[in-house]
Amino acid sequence: MSKQEKREYHSRSNGMFFEIKRMLVEKKSRFQKIEVIENPYFGHMLFLDGLVQTTEKDEFFYHEMLIHPAMVTHPDPRQILIIGGGDGGALKQILPYPIDSVRVVEIDPDVIAVAKKYFPWLLPSLEDERADITIADGREFLENSQDKYDVVILDSSEPIGPSVTLHERNFYKLIKDRLAPYGIACAQMGAPFFQTESLERAKNDLKDVFRIVRFYLAPVPTYPGGNWCYVYLSDEVDPFAIRRKPPQGLKYYNHNVHKAAFALPNYLQKILTNPSH
Amino acid sequence: MSKQEKREYHSRSNGMFFEIKRMLVEKKSRFQKIEVIENPYFGHMLFLDGLVQTTEKDEFFYHEMLIHPAMVTHPDPRQILIIGGGDGGALKQILPYPIDSVRVVEIDPDVIAVAKKYFPWLLPSLEDERADITIADGREFLENSQDKYDVVILDSSEPIGPSVTLHERNFYKLIKDRLAPYGIACAQMGAPFFQTESLERAKNDLKDVFRIVRFYLAPVPTYPGGNWCYVYLSDEVDPFAIRRKPPQGLKYYNHNVHKAAFALPNYLQKILTNPSH
Repeated sequence: MSKQEKREYHSRSNGMFFEIKRMLVEKKSRFQKIEVIENPYFGHMLFLDGLVQTTEKDEFFYHEMLIHPAMVTHPDPRQILIIGGGDGGALKQILPYPIDSVRVVEIDPDVIAVAKKYFPWLLPSLEDERADITIADGREFLENSQDKYDVVILDSSEPIGPSVTLHERNFYKLIKDRLAPYGIACAQMGAPFFQTESLERAKNDLKDVFRIVRFYLAPVPTYPGGNWCYVYLSDEVDPFAIRRKPPQGLKYYNHNVHKAAFALPNYLQKILTNPSH
Repeated sequence: MSKQEKREYHSRSNGMFFEIKRMLVEKKSRFQKIEVIENPYFGHMLFLDGLVQTTEKDEFFYHEMLIHPAMVTHPDPRQILIIGGGDGGALKQILPYPIDSVRVVEIDPDVIAVAKKYFPWLLPSLEDERADITIADGREFLENSQDKYDVVILDSSEPIGPSVTLHERNFYKLIKDRLAPYGIACAQMGAPFFQTESLERAKNDLKDVFRIVRFYLAPVPTYPGGNWCYVYLSDEVDPFAIRRKPPQGLKYYNHNVHKAAFALPNYLQKILTNPSH
C-alpha cells in the first residue's frame, strides 16, 4: 500500500477505501473530527468522525432523496427547517421551490466553514435572502423557539458524536410539536443492511409519535451497503399523493423513483411495516 | 494493517476491503483466478479474477432479483437455461417453480467444485432430477444446440475473463434465436454508477435485437456502488404483467420491489430509455 488512503469500516471486518490524492482538512472541532480529502474518482469528500458525509460526485443521490419526497407532497411548503446539513447540500435542494424561508440549524460552525471552502455549491445558497443559518444544537433550538414549520428535514450525521440526541423519541415529539398543520418531517435513517436492528427500534419510537411513518430507500454509492434508508413522517399527509413537479435539472429524483423508493424488500418489510411493538 | 485483507477496486482509487479470517481457496483455474475467503461479517465469499461474485450473507439480493422478474411474468416457464451461475445461487431460485428442466451451462468446472464445498446451498439443487449442469462455453453450447428455452438467464461474471464473449450483440442474437415463443432473457448488467458508459453501449446493442429492453435496478451490498443493474429482454412479454406469486421464503423479492426496480433515476433514464442510437 504505497498510496495514502482513507478507510471507513461498515462492520468490524469490511468497509470502503478511498485513495487520498490530497488531504485538504484534518482537524478536531469542538464536536467532532472533520476531514476533507480529494479522491481522484469522487472529488472532494467530507468525513465526520471518520464517516463519509458527502462527496462531490455522488452527493445528489442523498440530498435529492432526502428533500424532494417531502417537498412535492406537502400542500404548500413555505417555512422549512433543516437540522444538521451544514454542508449545504440539503439547502440547495430546497431553494428552487417558492418557499418563504429555510433555516439551517447546524451545531458545528467548523463544518460550515469547511463546506464554504471545499463544497462551494453551498455559497450561492447562503446568499439567498430566504436562507438563514443558525449555529445551535438542534434540540436546544427547538426547545427555545415556538416557530412552526411546514417541512422539517433531519440531515444528521450517524447516531454517534453530536447527532446522538437527534435519535430519541422525545426529540421526535419535539419536532412534531413544531410542525404546522399538514406538516411533514423527513430524516435519514442509516444503512438498512448493516443497521437493521436499530432501524426496528427507531420504527417503534416513531410509530408512537406520528400517525404516518413510511420508510423509503435509495442508493448512495459511498454509503455503507450502497443503499440508504430515509423516513417520511406526518400526521396528515400521504407520501404517495404527489402534488407538484420537482425542480428542473435533478440527477436522481423523479416521480417514478419517489413512488418506487417506498417498496421495501421482504427482510425490511417484516420489521418496518409490522404493527408497532 | 495487521490483519490480512482482500480488496476489490471499483475505480482506480476506491473500493471495498474485507478482512480475511481464513483463506479457503486461492487457485488459478484454466479460465480465471478463483478465491474463497471467510470474512467475519459476510461469511464465505467467492471472488473470480478479484471481483466479489457471491457471499453467504448477501447473495439473496442478487439471485432473487436476477431470477424472479422473468419467472413470475412468463406465461408458462418450463424449459430454463442459465449461462454461467456455477455457484448454484441462480439455480436454487428456479427450482421452487413447477418447471420441466433447468440447464446450467458453466464454463469452469473448478467454480462448481468450489461452490459444492464452500457454498453448500448448491448441493440440494444438484440432486433435483430436473436440474442438469453442462460444462461448456455458453456461446459454443448455444451454437451447437437447437433446443429452445422459455427463460434464459445470463449469470455471467464481469466482462473481463471468460465472460467477455457473453457481452456482444451476436451473442444476444443467438440467445434470442433459442427462445421459445413468449421467451424472456434476463442478464446482469454491472454497476450502473461506475459503468454508465458501457451500459449505454449495451442498450444500443440490445435494442437492435429485442423489441422489449427494460433495465432494472436493485441493491447488492458487496457489489460496486451498492446498486446493481439487470436487463429484461423479450419480444412479447411485458415485465409489468405479473402472472404468479414467487416462491415462499424469499428475503428480498416481492411484487412491489419487482415493479419499483424498473423506476430509473434521471441520470440513467436519460441514457437507457432514449430511442436507440
